[in-house]
Amino acid sequence: MADTNELATLIKKFRFTRVLDSNPQTKVLSLLGTIDSQDAIVTAEKTHFIFDETVRRPSQDVTNPLPIFYHCENEYSCINGLEELKELTSNDIYYWGLSVIKQDLKYNPTAKLNLIWPATAVHIKNNEQQNFHLIRETPEIYKKVVEPYINEMVNAGNLKWVNNILYEDAESERVVYKDYSADNKKESFILLPDMKWDGLSIDSLYLVAIVYRDDIKSVRDLKPTDKEWLTNLNNKIKSVVPGCYNYAINPDELRIFVHYQPSYYHFHIHVVNIKHPGLGNGIAAGKAILLDDIIESLNYLGPEGFMKKTMTYVLGENHDLWKRGLEEELSKQLKNDGIPEPPKIVDGFALNH
Amino acid sequence: MADTNELATLIKKFRFTRVLDSNPQTKVLSLLGTIDSQDAIVTAEKTHFIFDETVRRPSQDVTNPLPIFYHCENEYSCINGLEELKELTSNDIYYWGLSVIKQDLKYNPTAKLNLIWPATAVHIKNNEQQNFHLIRETPEIYKKVVEPYINEMVNAGNLKWVNNILYEDAESERVVYKDYSADNKKESFILLPDMKWDGLSIDSLYLVAIVYRDDIKSVRDLKPTDKEWLTNLNNKIKSVVPGCYNYAINPDELRIFVHYQPSYYHFHIHVVNIKHPGLGNGIAAGKAILLDDIIESLNYLGPEGFMKKTMTYVLGENHDLWKRGLEEELSKQLKNDGIPEPPKIVDGFALNH
Repeated sequence: MADTNELATLIKKFRFTRVLDSNPQTKVLSLLGTIDSQDAIVTAEKTHFIFDETVRRPSQDVTNPLPIFYHCENEYSCINGLEELKELTSNDIYYWGLSVIKQDLKYNPTAKLNLIWPATAVHIKNNEQQNFHLIRETPEIYKKVVEPYINEMVNAGNLKWVNNILYEDAESERVVYKDYSADNKKESFILLPDMKWDGLSIDSLYLVAIVYRDDIKSVRDLKPTDKEWLTNLNNKIKSVVPGCYNYAINPDELRIFVHYQPSYYHFHIHVVNIKHPGLGNGIAAGKAILLDDIIESLNYLGPEGFMKKTMTYVLGENHDLWKRGLEEELSKQLKNDGIPEPPKIVDGFALNH
Repeated sequence: MADTNELATLIKKFRFTRVLDSNPQTKVLSLLGTIDSQDAIVTAEKTHFIFDETVRRPSQDVTNPLPIFYHCENEYSCINGLEELKELTSNDIYYWGLSVIKQDLKYNPTAKLNLIWPATAVHIKNNEQQNFHLIRETPEIYKKVVEPYINEMVNAGNLKWVNNILYEDAESERVVYKDYSADNKKESFILLPDMKWDGLSIDSLYLVAIVYRDDIKSVRDLKPTDKEWLTNLNNKIKSVVPGCYNYAINPDELRIFVHYQPSYYHFHIHVVNIKHPGLGNGIAAGKAILLDDIIESLNYLGPEGFMKKTMTYVLGENHDLWKRGLEEELSKQLKNDGIPEPPKIVDGFALNH
């Protein structure tokens, strides 16, 4: 089993160092530790409730032989699956309690677990709680600060895992849809579950479409000549995804967007259930840009497309770009805009206690 | 035990009707059902990870007999408590898996459970989630469906409360900042806490700036001639807010945006701590548009500004505009885009049990 469950073998050797992040709202915990003396990051997220499922049954109607899809409760639901329940308190018509619900590795696991090992300093920074800033990236700042960084990242081989997926059949058992032809690499793309999705609850459906084109590092590289390509991609995603999930989701219930800054510089598109409410910063204005809006903007931006646009987005201090120039550019902009600097604040915690 | 565990007795009689809400981000599920033929709402929320605990141990040092406190992992942690772990996939240094973690009603319960019984119609409505759709509103659809609706809303006197704030000193004790001059109504605005803010935690700071201009119903009415006005507003908000909160927040830590569709048709701007974790759809791409992006877009959109843009956004079925024409327009668009219709799904819950 060692081969197919390397994760379990590695986790057994995990030695805890410190908590990187703990979010009681989303029930996500991120731990730093070591495995064989190398840094390891374990991130655990509780699963959502498994409640109902869509079941496909053959039609009983001979004149209309199409199968019928039924919604029904399953045995792990928070009612059917209740093993223990203890009342804490009650007041009038309101009751509060704690419960234990039946779990099962396959059908109702407790948590998703991700491991990064060996983790680099960048991985640690990206998983740690940090301060955020609103950045107004002009075309000049892009050329000066961001583009050299992107080139460095791409040349450092950080996209190896993307190529593994596209060409080496890595994660092939997870692929939801693949539209690839060597003759038409430009239109080709692959669709697979994002690592943020547990793969179970359709309410939190989260897929990522990775294109085979490798000349688009980010939305910045998109030009009016890419409009048709993007429109086709958008329509294809909407056509294909519902069928992959038994039509438990409709095409107009997908939020289809890209990130800027993205977490890796090979063009990819996020496809998320429109109901998925938070995802932290992930679907927020200032990080996510709807594919429909990108297509629309290409009607107005000149022939150089997004390269001439000022992009405003939220950046965490742990992002390399912060120290590599964006912090400095931001402070110049605030001065130019006439926004007063805050007075110096002394952290008096030590003095008070 | 019936008295001290009435909750358990009631839940045993719960007969499911439908799912009211399901939130995969916060892992909250809300169900409507009946208990003894009266409506009941059960809301369940997964618990956060129990990770570490502080343990008190007697000192071994006779010269310093004070006890020593140790942080240690407890037996239910996502590492120590692991009962089963299955790798889903791995790629390079990344591993993903699902796990079952030891649970215990007292020390590590699965979920909090709340019951409201008997529940009123108001309870049900407040706990209910609607279906959402991605709408692509062309300038033609705006003229045909949305503009008549806005005019109706404005004429029906729905903005009386806004005028009360602007001119009648309503909520004056809540006003954070007021920049008003009768001679310069155009540049005037008022800043006050949004009702979604508890007014306590700076991490969830949420203010709203309402302008005195009443010729802007929504972002649709903004034209390139408004660029300077918007830029001044943006800079003024960033200059004023930090000082109002003892510089506990910086100007570049404010997410400043408008909504489309807004909840009322008098131009107003949302001002939120960039860290704010749980705003659901409120800060999402497809609802929120950064003020900086609006200002930037006015450089490219022609003299008619946003009136000529196709706006893509998320709309709930409970919004009046859904039934007033957007549902119909959306279904036409999907057909035009060549996106196949899903087969019929039957809600056959009752048939299964």
